[in-house]
Amino acid sequence: MITPDRIQLWFSVGSTYTYLTVARLPDIQARTGLSFELRPFNVRAIMREQNNIPFATKPVKAAYMWRDIERRAAMYGLPVNVPAPYPLRAFDLANCVAVLGSAEGWCAEYVRATYRYWFVDGLEPGSEPNLSLSIVEAGQDPARVIAAAKSPAIDAAYGAATEEARKLNIFGAPTLVACGEVFWGDDRVEDAIAWHREGVS
Amino acid sequence: MITPDRIQLWFSVGSTYTYLTVARLPDIQARTGLSFELRPFNVRAIMREQNNIPFATKPVKAAYMWRDIERRAAMYGLPVNVPAPYPLRAFDLANCVAVLGSAEGWCAEYVRATYRYWFVDGLEPGSEPNLSLSIVEAGQDPARVIAAAKSPAIDAAYGAATEEARKLNIFGAPTLVACGEVFWGDDRVEDAIAWHREGVS
Repeated sequence: MITPDRIQLWFSVGSTYTYLTVARLPDIQARTGLSFELRPFNVRAIMREQNNIPFATKPVKAAYMWRDIERRAAMYGLPVNVPAPYPLRAFDLANCVAVLGSAEGWCAEYVRATYRYWFVDGLEPGSEPNLSLSIVEAGQDPARVIAAAKSPAIDAAYGAATEEARKLNIFGAPTLVACGEVFWGDDRVEDAIAWHREGVS
Repeated sequence: MITPDRIQLWFSVGSTYTYLTVARLPDIQARTGLSFELRPFNVRAIMREQNNIPFATKPVKAAYMWRDIERRAAMYGLPVNVPAPYPLRAFDLANCVAVLGSAEGWCAEYVRATYRYWFVDGLEPGSEPNLSLSIVEAGQDPARVIAAAKSPAIDAAYGAATEEARKLNIFGAPTLVACGEVFWGDDRVEDAIAWHREGVS
């Protein structure tokens, strides 16, 4: 399902480059007047299916990735303290909270907070204390949210979002979908915005 | 060995995204006044060592790669006709010709021609007729160049360049090295130029 009037931002909490996108999203939205639909999904499941393991078994490429993120964060004026803990131990819980937040309207605040605690303070998403701190920062009660995020309903919604991503041929995160066109990577955000403007004009 | 006053462009003929960089290099050099040192090497050997297989076994990601190159070529005003034949059958010969061209001063012309025949006309580098056409376009005699490119001296130079790339922690192509800093991908060319300007200013 494509929303023609908004750019979709597909992501998993746990994707490293997604930090750059979620951290600069408020500025992008203010500058462009566009709003982005946040679509958390399980990129790890899709990458495993496709045998796409970019960093865990590739130390040279992983070291480059951290340095590249550090440089790009500086370019964007974003705080960063890398390498951050990686990969996440509680990847699915971190993302099920985002799925719940998406249904209830506080996903953006949660995601921004959990990435900041991760990339600035070194506290990994999905685990305490990041988990509760980020939920509180999104204005929610951690006990309620964590219980609901573990419910079968949210697990099903997480799976359905992942299946939708699969059908869109999404293979990584962050991915932007603009007028049905897929753009992968923080470094394609501007391409997606240009495509969206062409498409809706 | 880092050349402080020039940006190094490390590449293999056979890398898909390298098309974008070599095709827009004349314009970049004219616009910025910078010159780039072309450094052909065997990225395939390094990627195999690191079990880094981005496209050959990943059809969804490969399809995206072609579409992304098509869109980016349009953005840069470059002609493109993709998917192009991939991967190359005569990868090493295509690159040994570039190594020879680098020693003799006609590498840029050869590389630009062989990529154009590949990405516009669908003729793969290293094989005929692309091979001879590109050598002629670089002002050289195909029989001489092909024989010399197959010599032990050029094979040794190709291996030495690859070892130098390995020591620089280069893991993909194209890669730019600016003041000792490594930037991977056509989409980091502008970052490398900015880094170079900071470094030499």
